[in-house]
Amino acid sequence: MIKVGIVGGTGYTGVELLRLLAQHAQADVAVITSRSEAGICVADMYPSLRGHYDHLSFTVPDSATLGACDVVFFATPHGVAHALAGELLAAGTRVIDLSADFRLEDADEWAKWYGQPHGAPELLSEAVYGLPEVNREAIRAARLIAVPGCYPTATQLGLIPLLEAGLADPRQLIANCASGVSGAGRGAKVGSLLCETSESLMAYAVKGHRHLPEISQGLRRAAGESVGLTFVPHLAPMIRGIHATLYATVADRAVDLQALFERRYANEPFVDVMPAGSHPETRSVRGANVCRIAVHRPQDGDLVVVLSVIDNLVKGASGQALQNMNILFGLDERLGLAHPALMP
Amino acid sequence: MIKVGIVGGTGYTGVELLRLLAQHAQADVAVITSRSEAGICVADMYPSLRGHYDHLSFTVPDSATLGACDVVFFATPHGVAHALAGELLAAGTRVIDLSADFRLEDADEWAKWYGQPHGAPELLSEAVYGLPEVNREAIRAARLIAVPGCYPTATQLGLIPLLEAGLADPRQLIANCASGVSGAGRGAKVGSLLCETSESLMAYAVKGHRHLPEISQGLRRAAGESVGLTFVPHLAPMIRGIHATLYATVADRAVDLQALFERRYANEPFVDVMPAGSHPETRSVRGANVCRIAVHRPQDGDLVVVLSVIDNLVKGASGQALQNMNILFGLDERLGLAHPALMP
Amino acid sequence: MIKVGIVGGTGYTGVELLRLLAQHAQADVAVITSRSEAGICVADMYPSLRGHYDHLSFTVPDSATLGACDVVFFATPHGVAHALAGELLAAGTRVIDLSADFRLEDADEWAKWYGQPHGAPELLSEAVYGLPEVNREAIRAARLIAVPGCYPTATQLGLIPLLEAGLADPRQLIANCASGVSGAGRGAKVGSLLCETSESLMAYAVKGHRHLPEISQGLRRAAGESVGLTFVPHLAPMIRGIHATLYATVADRAVDLQALFERRYANEPFVDVMPAGSHPETRSVRGANVCRIAVHRPQDGDLVVVLSVIDNLVKGASGQALQNMNILFGLDERLGLAHPALMP
Amino acid sequence: MIKVGIVGGTGYTGVELLRLLAQHAQADVAVITSRSEAGICVADMYPSLRGHYDHLSFTVPDSATLGACDVVFFATPHGVAHALAGELLAAGTRVIDLSADFRLEDADEWAKWYGQPHGAPELLSEAVYGLPEVNREAIRAARLIAVPGCYPTATQLGLIPLLEAGLADPRQLIANCASGVSGAGRGAKVGSLLCETSESLMAYAVKGHRHLPEISQGLRRAAGESVGLTFVPHLAPMIRGIHATLYATVADRAVDLQALFERRYANEPFVDVMPAGSHPETRSVRGANVCRIAVHRPQDGDLVVVLSVIDNLVKGASGQALQNMNILFGLDERLGLAHPALMP
Repeated sequence: MIKVGIVGGTGYTGVELLRLLAQHAQADVAVITSRSEAGICVADMYPSLRGHYDHLSFTVPDSATLGACDVVFFATPHGVAHALAGELLAAGTRVIDLSADFRLEDADEWAKWYGQPHGAPELLSEAVYGLPEVNREAIRAARLIAVPGCYPTATQLGLIPLLEAGLADPRQLIANCASGVSGAGRGAKVGSLLCETSESLMAYAVKGHRHLPEISQGLRRAAGESVGLTFVPHLAPMIRGIHATLYATVADRAVDLQALFERRYANEPFVDVMPAGSHPETRSVRGANVCRIAVHRPQDGDLVVVLSVIDNLVKGASGQALQNMNILFGLDERLGLAHPALMP
Repeated sequence: MIKVGIVGGTGYTGVELLRLLAQHAQADVAVITSRSEAGICVADMYPSLRGHYDHLSFTVPDSATLGACDVVFFATPHGVAHALAGELLAAGTRVIDLSADFRLEDADEWAKWYGQPHGAPELLSEAVYGLPEVNREAIRAARLIAVPGCYPTATQLGLIPLLEAGLADPRQLIANCASGVSGAGRGAKVGSLLCETSESLMAYAVKGHRHLPEISQGLRRAAGESVGLTFVPHLAPMIRGIHATLYATVADRAVDLQALFERRYANEPFVDVMPAGSHPETRSVRGANVCRIAVHRPQDGDLVVVLSVIDNLVKGASGQALQNMNILFGLDERLGLAHPALMP
Repeated sequence: MIKVGIVGGTGYTGVELLRLLAQHAQADVAVITSRSEAGICVADMYPSLRGHYDHLSFTVPDSATLGACDVVFFATPHGVAHALAGELLAAGTRVIDLSADFRLEDADEWAKWYGQPHGAPELLSEAVYGLPEVNREAIRAARLIAVPGCYPTATQLGLIPLLEAGLADPRQLIANCASGVSGAGRGAKVGSLLCETSESLMAYAVKGHRHLPEISQGLRRAAGESVGLTFVPHLAPMIRGIHATLYATVADRAVDLQALFERRYANEPFVDVMPAGSHPETRSVRGANVCRIAVHRPQDGDLVVVLSVIDNLVKGASGQALQNMNILFGLDERLGLAHPALMP
Repeated sequence: MIKVGIVGGTGYTGVELLRLLAQHAQADVAVITSRSEAGICVADMYPSLRGHYDHLSFTVPDSATLGACDVVFFATPHGVAHALAGELLAAGTRVIDLSADFRLEDADEWAKWYGQPHGAPELLSEAVYGLPEVNREAIRAARLIAVPGCYPTATQLGLIPLLEAGLADPRQLIANCASGVSGAGRGAKVGSLLCETSESLMAYAVKGHRHLPEISQGLRRAAGESVGLTFVPHLAPMIRGIHATLYATVADRAVDLQALFERRYANEPFVDVMPAGSHPETRSVRGANVCRIAVHRPQDGDLVVVLSVIDNLVKGASGQALQNMNILFGLDERLGLAHPALMP
């Protein structure tokens, strides 16, 4: 059994890790930390987990206890993993970080977007960007994994087949995305209240969102050259789900895009290329570790439209983190992640 | 492996059976019928099931094919199971009926509430009411199981501890219940449109709902005498969930109701008596086969308030059907039903 | 023109007052206060009001400025009106308080339920409970009006016809109510997040809710004797709306309840007794100052079920406050309140 | 008083016309037709209108009765206005058509997109496209007005300032739009059920939506040349609202776009150009006849992003129809349309 620690277990990605790990046959949660909730039983805070973790309580983070785990997940705000990761790695514990701390290769760029100096630049060279569909081999050998963000997962999976094949103009990419409100976390903010977000839709952060440099970095790797990306996130009145509507200029109208996408993801257990003409719904992946993709070329023009949906808390966070853990420990990649979506 | 057939697989209880059976280690869906969708691949109709049932298509119901199954679930409107159950039982196939066809002991009462003659009164004597918390032994030996309705499950589980103990006045029971819209099924009705049901709450069928005689019958069995029940269902603006707020007069103020409920359900894998003072949320059971219950005595008066929540599609339908199947076939009752709720 | 002041204009009842007053032909908002938002233009905080209050900004509360108004509304948490009302009344300004500060006649009971001493007991004797359907004459002559709470409005309007007529047993009353999330206010609380409240239903405060003594007081006045009330509030996954399902024992089965209710409210502009057999939806009053009521006697038994719906922010708060203002200033009671509900 | 007729009053645009006309001081609804609901009182079908139209019932459409009206609104599926408009115009009645029947100038293009021949091509030359911000003078003199569609209204208002000024490349326009479910109408379709649409987001009709030729036609007029538009509509889990996220390439980075938009709409009562950096929410226009617009240039690049929101049933349908009526009859354009949005 893999001995698992979770730092910061009170947010939505933390409780989602617990939900998924409850069904994982090869892993046990040994420790879960929360400064604010120390001493509280996990199942008292999250009644949905009653019967599953009745003897697990939040504890104050402590590097000795965490260092005794085989793997520690960080489900924390940015900055926290910077401070603790080095010590855990030194203790031989693997680190899977769901926050943004190790996603950008460039510490200066990180500092610019996150408004504070990078706290562990010395670890960047060994951090592996945990998108299995791109980095599976590197993940297998990693000690420190940066789990991709939710928008970046949906967007990269939708665009990389075009960029890797050299088909899309990398200077003119648009990612028009919408997220459910759980993407804003479990913090008590007026902007996340039901009365402020339901029955409404809005764009936000059009000027620049922190996921922009992360997406650009991933697309750049796929294209092998610099990219020009416009990224417009929206807040949608629902709990879960990311819907990415991606626009790319593909001058070659003869290429069979459907075949291209099907080939690219033929062996991927968690990417589903839907039949030509499909419109994936976010609910078709609710609770499941799947990205569903459809590719369109409206009016047979130059502009290709890719639709890509994930559950932001699963393939966009905790599910992908577990997928990384499975790869890292040589398990079947689908372990604990094979259940269908909850529909309706 | 148990060979499973499903009659009427296109509605919400049908697709929920498929979702749950996809994770069941001892059962395989061999046949699923739908007259209207015959020939269509299940995963084409329900993209959430892509990757799980890629070779399963709807077929026209046929008693030979169904009769070759070990068990057949009916996820059909009332009347359908009446017509087919006898033939399947004769073929040695067990029948688990999610419809109302065999829930009432009295064929005349059934005819009165459903507006048509009972189609198989000769089978009523052997039909077992599939509420495991009451009828587990009978289920083990049954050939024909009537899975309880959603409101009846939440209401009976909430009230029977009081009635079995002879504590509540059986003449003055109130069940004030609310259901998510999936309780109305997948039919194309104006009254189930998002624009008609979201951002609104309403009572319905105050004059008399078809679940009233079913609940009364179950409470009568528990009380050992006739009962007087007022049942007011409401439509709540959500997909899943039943919330039952139950009122009973308990004159004996010295009795420890919390202990009573905990004792009654101590060995039940799918009934969770919450700590004193709790208010169970329907989301705490979303997607899970659990009934969570809390018991209150406001202002230390005579009137006891029991709160009982289930997911109407799981413990209120397809999950309970599977629980019955597990019992019937001598399996671990929790097989395929052990996952936590989806939260948030 | 009536010169209006609003204290505490940043919450939902405050912005709802602004919405309604924007359409009121005889009133102008001269001042609106908020300590935290002082200096901010109202329309910058609430873009829905752009074009309506472009020159109105929040100011720090100041008794001289407020005292120059004809009427001041308090849309504040409890305790604030206690501190300011006396001074304003002394200045000749009328006070319409939407908070709970002057709703209970008994200062000790107030102190018990609100956990602090009553701050202005000397004003209680002249405070008028602003339920026009009961107190219209007293409102006309009042200087200080306590606007009823949302649950109390829906519940009292539903039960008083039975109690005034001496038909219902006053010792056995049940109010099973559900509220939209806006009832919890605009405060940044985890419990009001979309991800915590949508797709779920729950009871709360079953042990005792602050509206219980207010409702009991009103029902006691109607009955002319003490009452026994069980009040169970629920949180429903929607923004606006109160749905009250009220249970009362009416032994006399010969009385024509429909006629009784129609007579009681024949001349009330804002109470709509629906046809026999109706089930009012909360959306039928969304944004409108109306209470819609239906009365049922299921299975022709002793237990009568009254259904009563309001918009908690309109007839349950700001609309009723304006109705009081209209009465107080001798205007047509419907001024600014005559628009239909927003449906769908 | 203007004598108003409404053909097809049972859908969402019909009931919205009734809601708005209930507050219009210069118009009376004399007749409302519905074949399926003939004889039913409007307020029995729509309880939200109780107290407003208690003596108005649906009637079978009849050209004599309709021809006695000053103006007739068509709130019908496409094809119906084709059949009746000519006769009404001949009777001297003005026609305001909310359907798509007279929106396209070219009968052949109409036939291609709507799958049937155009039923009244002889009327096309005099039909005026009822977008007041573009065609106010023509509307004043019109007999037959084609009210723009919901997506076309939001999209055109967002893009025409750029196109009229010759700033945007007309060959590379993208309209990424999302609509609430009321845009799909009140028909009983599985795809509009709450259980199919809430908690989910999806694109649809990416191959080609009927609003595409309408939008292209309007943008072509503004640009003075042909345009290349990619239009991707999405279904959002809410009742009302259109959110358009519009992308246009504006090579001239020196132009002050904020000033351009403010100038263009300086005298428009129903277009609100928000402050620089804003993100309009659809709820800020819920129930109101307003289009709110913000313009962004992310990362100071070539690609300009315009955000434009309306309520699809108001500025996107019935409100705009009334605005047209006000202009047509020489009234204050804001009559009956001046109320703020319902928020929250």
